[in-house]
Amino acid sequence: VKTPATAVLRLSTRQGRRKERTRGRLVDAARRVISRKGVETTTILDITEEADVGFGTFYNYFPSKEAILAATSSEAVEAHGSALDELTADLDDAAEVIAICLRHTVRTVDHDPIWAWFVVNAGIFTEQTEAGLGRRLTRDIRAGISRRRFAKPSNLPLLLHVIGAAVWAVMRERLRGKLGPKADQELAALVLRMLGVDGDEAREIASRPLPAVSAARGESR
Amino acid sequence: VKTPATAVLRLSTRQGRRKERTRGRLVDAARRVISRKGVETTTILDITEEADVGFGTFYNYFPSKEAILAATSSEAVEAHGSALDELTADLDDAAEVIAICLRHTVRTVDHDPIWAWFVVNAGIFTEQTEAGLGRRLTRDIRAGISRRRFAKPSNLPLLLHVIGAAVWAVMRERLRGKLGPKADQELAALVLRMLGVDGDEAREIASRPLPAVSAARGESR
Repeated sequence: VKTPATAVLRLSTRQGRRKERTRGRLVDAARRVISRKGVETTTILDITEEADVGFGTFYNYFPSKEAILAATSSEAVEAHGSALDELTADLDDAAEVIAICLRHTVRTVDHDPIWAWFVVNAGIFTEQTEAGLGRRLTRDIRAGISRRRFAKPSNLPLLLHVIGAAVWAVMRERLRGKLGPKADQELAALVLRMLGVDGDEAREIASRPLPAVSAARGESR
Repeated sequence: VKTPATAVLRLSTRQGRRKERTRGRLVDAARRVISRKGVETTTILDITEEADVGFGTFYNYFPSKEAILAATSSEAVEAHGSALDELTADLDDAAEVIAICLRHTVRTVDHDPIWAWFVVNAGIFTEQTEAGLGRRLTRDIRAGISRRRFAKPSNLPLLLHVIGAAVWAVMRERLRGKLGPKADQELAALVLRMLGVDGDEAREIASRPLPAVSAARGESR
């Protein structure tokens, strides 16, 4: 026998699922619009039209454009970062780990250009050097320094900004069709050189067969 | 005795000077506004208000925002680039030349922040890798390769994009007060490493006393 309490619970669960779906549509819409237009010129109306929800609905989920940008960025980055963590968990050499992560990130240009344009336009690599992918890169660089695989950098925050900007620039030029398909290897070799790995070895590590990554980055929710 | 022809000539010369002055005011105004606001959100009205000229006057000098941006960029870059050319004309070592040029460019943050914000916001380093400062950097890298001072890069356009993005990122973080006063040296050392110079030598070259640059970058016209 259904009690009123159960009915309310089921209703609220269904409502909860619907709210979750609407939120997901807004986040997906924000990712697509920002991929096309960049952050500065994207408006809340652009996002609600792309998501096919009413303009006012937006504010039931996010207080501002900055808030949905933050949510969209962190979801996009975390799924990608977790997949890379899983892929490289058993590797000992920090140089190999960093090369694989950089190369997979650049290669999203080929198999997921919406995600790639989003992270390029949203400034993920140039603004967030302490969170998300920047935090992971910091961890891997520190591991390489402590094992004397890398030279100790004279200024780690500066190095992180330089690497982030390098990834951003290479992905953007690839998205624009300007650099060739080996750009991922060439970028990885340059970064390993900056970390103190010898040029020939850097090139060898950066051109090894790339293990496949399994998890999606949440773009097809 | 003044002939009518001479009077016309003098008038037209005076008009010419006035036109030149108004154009210069528009270019200076564009540099200041873009320094503060970035390219995307700057409007022609912002520029004419900053220059204190009528809105319609703008179109006597430039057909579009893109046109004044191009003129402002090329004037800003050429004056800076010529000063660096002069400063390094007598130096033989391409590594030293590049270190000096990178360091002086980053140091504009301290002594000419309007110029620095302008070149950061206008995308000079990330868009113009084949003209202006990018052309000069290409020339110096090629000189170093031909003398076997640098390793031959596997992809020169990619390397130029990475260096350009690195300069952009370091200047922006300096402008935001985030990196210390030795950022110019640290950036130069990283770039020399990417070019194949050994780590210790790169650091030594990047920390030499920096010769003073004389010419202004046209900001005080």
